[in-house]
Amino acid sequence: MTEPFTDRLSINQITVKSWTFEETVRGCARHGIGHVGAWLDSVAEIGVDKAAGVLADHGVSVSSVCRAGFFTGNSPDRSWAGRADNERAIDMTARLGADVLYLVCGGVADDRDLPAARAAVRDGLAELVPYAAERGVRLAVEPLHPMMCAERSVIVTLDQAVELAEPFGPDEVGIAIDTYNVWWDPRLAEGIERAGDRIIGYQVCDWLVPQPHPVFGRGVPGEGVIDLRGITRAVDATGYDGPIEVEIFNEKVWSSPPDEVIRVIKERFAAGVLG
Amino acid sequence: MTEPFTDRLSINQITVKSWTFEETVRGCARHGIGHVGAWLDSVAEIGVDKAAGVLADHGVSVSSVCRAGFFTGNSPDRSWAGRADNERAIDMTARLGADVLYLVCGGVADDRDLPAARAAVRDGLAELVPYAAERGVRLAVEPLHPMMCAERSVIVTLDQAVELAEPFGPDEVGIAIDTYNVWWDPRLAEGIERAGDRIIGYQVCDWLVPQPHPVFGRGVPGEGVIDLRGITRAVDATGYDGPIEVEIFNEKVWSSPPDEVIRVIKERFAAGVLG
Repeated sequence: MTEPFTDRLSINQITVKSWTFEETVRGCARHGIGHVGAWLDSVAEIGVDKAAGVLADHGVSVSSVCRAGFFTGNSPDRSWAGRADNERAIDMTARLGADVLYLVCGGVADDRDLPAARAAVRDGLAELVPYAAERGVRLAVEPLHPMMCAERSVIVTLDQAVELAEPFGPDEVGIAIDTYNVWWDPRLAEGIERAGDRIIGYQVCDWLVPQPHPVFGRGVPGEGVIDLRGITRAVDATGYDGPIEVEIFNEKVWSSPPDEVIRVIKERFAAGVLG
Repeated sequence: MTEPFTDRLSINQITVKSWTFEETVRGCARHGIGHVGAWLDSVAEIGVDKAAGVLADHGVSVSSVCRAGFFTGNSPDRSWAGRADNERAIDMTARLGADVLYLVCGGVADDRDLPAARAAVRDGLAELVPYAAERGVRLAVEPLHPMMCAERSVIVTLDQAVELAEPFGPDEVGIAIDTYNVWWDPRLAEGIERAGDRIIGYQVCDWLVPQPHPVFGRGVPGEGVIDLRGITRAVDATGYDGPIEVEIFNEKVWSSPPDEVIRVIKERFAAGVLG
């Protein structure tokens, strides 16, 4: 019998953000969930080698690591130190036993020059790829929602992400799709098809109406207006059969008990997310 | 001597929203501004014929009327009554002596079927065009920002807007460009060129960092990250030489004295907006 939670469901750490890394891994194991989406700051708290041990002890694998990038020099808190931080993120991903590192490409710089910012992303990616490839880490270009173009990512469509990735091998640079970021795109179906076998990350959450917050407006699957099943069907039709991460930025979710959040996600996963 | 304020600057009523229609027209005239962007609810308050008289008395013309549309049956407050409301909006636009009526196409319906919502927009537009054309009113399709896809407009890119408009004559259906809605688009330059002589409305405001509100996050030109001059240059390069409306949804702007808001806009207009 297929077990959808073990095979496909992954809980991104941000969804249960009051938990430490170890609590998240234990929680996933307790709920029969086979994968976790890891955040590097939380891995650093426990130490990367101990984190790898906790994963092995519980039979939980890392579906993705968040995050490197910020190639334009513009990150929300202006704290990203560039190439050194990106190499450290790659090292940690490899030591964690993971092989997919998400990129948040960086927002537009203060000079308002969007084409220049996009060129900086191309250049920064090209510079980083050999270091990642040598360590067996695939870089996942994630288009963010256009509302994050200023502060987080000048890469805002699947078409752009595919064009960024194409100069590199599929084992070097892949694509990460998050339903919240791409659901509005009139070229979504074409974009998913174009991404094809480069899709190495798939995250889901819903779009709440109204949006309660300019950034933290994401909902549990089923609470919003995104056709999650339709998007999953399109992603799976490319041949993707990897983990589906539930990643929710939402203050109400964060103030709920994580076990209860996971219970609701499991309840809705098969009927509301799987194609 | 060219007078940029008389020739090109227009103040959208929402920017000075504490003023009535008459106060806005008087204010524009007092500041040497030749155009105003009108909202129908505010025109209805004074009465459309009296509003037309106030405009004539002050030598102020209407650059655009806001708004009709909501073809998907989904508007933010669910109050839009469909075709009857759209015909009334066309009638009022004509009686006001204006000829550009903005369309807000409507959000995705509760069934989460985005392709169906987009088909409903195509059908609703086709149904409305003859009524508008008979009254000399051009319908302006405005792509809204993708963050408004759920509640306000499933039309979110210039490419989509052009494809919606193309079956009709340029005197029947045009395109409205608002910098806040389109600045992030990797295909912005191509989209503006494609819209070409269909551009019948151009609105500017800035994108604030961070966004203070999920909807009311717009700033006075110069306060944000949008390359307004570059976009104006591209719009003007299509041959557009009509009014440039400053339309700002922002609670801080709304709580400032309108005369002061207009003074700041005038101060920044030539150097910060004109190409």
